[in-house]
Amino acid sequence: MTADPAGAIGRRAVVAAAALAGLAAAAPRPAAAGQRLQVAMLMVPDMTAMDLVGPQLILATLPDTDVHLVAAGRAPVVTDSGLAILPTLTLADCPAELDVLFVPGGLKGTTALIGDDALLGFLRDRGSRARLVASVCTGALALAAAGLLRGYRATGHWYIRDLLRDFGAEPVAARVVEDRDRMTGAGVTAGLDFALRLSARLRGEAVARTQTLVFEYDPQPPFDTGSPAKAGPELTARVLERRGPAIEAARQAALAARAKWPA
Amino acid sequence: MTADPAGAIGRRAVVAAAALAGLAAAAPRPAAAGQRLQVAMLMVPDMTAMDLVGPQLILATLPDTDVHLVAAGRAPVVTDSGLAILPTLTLADCPAELDVLFVPGGLKGTTALIGDDALLGFLRDRGSRARLVASVCTGALALAAAGLLRGYRATGHWYIRDLLRDFGAEPVAARVVEDRDRMTGAGVTAGLDFALRLSARLRGEAVARTQTLVFEYDPQPPFDTGSPAKAGPELTARVLERRGPAIEAARQAALAARAKWPA
Repeated sequence: MTADPAGAIGRRAVVAAAALAGLAAAAPRPAAAGQRLQVAMLMVPDMTAMDLVGPQLILATLPDTDVHLVAAGRAPVVTDSGLAILPTLTLADCPAELDVLFVPGGLKGTTALIGDDALLGFLRDRGSRARLVASVCTGALALAAAGLLRGYRATGHWYIRDLLRDFGAEPVAARVVEDRDRMTGAGVTAGLDFALRLSARLRGEAVARTQTLVFEYDPQPPFDTGSPAKAGPELTARVLERRGPAIEAARQAALAARAKWPA
Repeated sequence: MTADPAGAIGRRAVVAAAALAGLAAAAPRPAAAGQRLQVAMLMVPDMTAMDLVGPQLILATLPDTDVHLVAAGRAPVVTDSGLAILPTLTLADCPAELDVLFVPGGLKGTTALIGDDALLGFLRDRGSRARLVASVCTGALALAAAGLLRGYRATGHWYIRDLLRDFGAEPVAARVVEDRDRMTGAGVTAGLDFALRLSARLRGEAVARTQTLVFEYDPQPPFDTGSPAKAGPELTARVLERRGPAIEAARQAALAARAKWPA
């Protein structure tokens, strides 16, 4: 996928080089000219669509970047809000060498992912060589279960953040955490903050600043309950009570995966 | 009123999966008026996926709410970032009486929508009876071209906000604007702020506060360039120069639609 963020809205196949000229001149290019970035975003049933779509908005509109939506099969992937999204590649077709390997969350989808040896094996394989391994939301628990966060600082949805410690990671209560070749975002909507940080890292701050304007990212949350600290103990406890069994299922799946780690 | 975003998510996925499998019996039936809310989100090629997916995250996880993704045909709708999303209903199958009619944006998609008599006619028909007519991003220009914003205060992506005046609306430079039975959001990422306001309106503040926590909506934009005022004149001018022709195309399409309004 090629596009500058501004011209991107509307781009599908080809964008004239002239249209990109203004942005390209402003963007530091870590990759050599002509070298396209390869980004793989793993899609699994019951993932949370927003975990993927926020980052996809940002990454697919970077210059000289191919974003692959990778799934076990070719069928539409039905997400946990009912939205069905088409993958673009199967696991086997995914490039072996990636610039970014990204995993979205969604508790039920993450639990199934962790219990699926093919999917977890895919994460381990591509993750062992990717220049950057990344997640948003409960996707961090999938990376952790695959052994990909050992020795790293990381964040994730507050449901599962503290669980990361059991997999050799150091949980950090932050919206986005960068630690060497790992980059993790907090829950769901944190994907936008995550992806703009990633955009700046991949293509430079000028690009990310332009995307911020083009996508009008000037949030004004109508309610100030976006974290357990802000929501307070009562509301947090109510949510945790309802989500408790699903969180525990994810934890058990991750512990079972850890039991298979090579000694 | 208790929020059950997480539980509702599971139900929506089941319904969507069933619909994909052709199991019409699983499709939610409109109950007596005042029971299940009927929400229709119009999907058009080259729309911006994020314009739709942010609000869909919030609306599809409301209690007792059916969210229909309505398109001209049954094929996947390819958005302007390359993401392909499946519709759940065609225009003809969409419930006649809606609680919410929603239109996303994306300049190229909006321009095509405005030039398509069947789509604009659908907006006029459902919009004439819907309890609430709503948009995010350049979707406001489609509502305006359909004559649905005459006499209303409204917002939209800063690309097209001032153009709304030519269609009888009063543009307001705000993230979200509510005016009686119209509710409009600014560009792209404003869909989250818009939808949480809408959630509170439809199902009460307690639900919206819970969704804010569950979806961890505690944004921390890494760059403070999310509006023309914040980005400054130089960056704004660069983006406008590049997007100028697409904005003008949208304006011309809307003026052509206005010329067909009944006197």
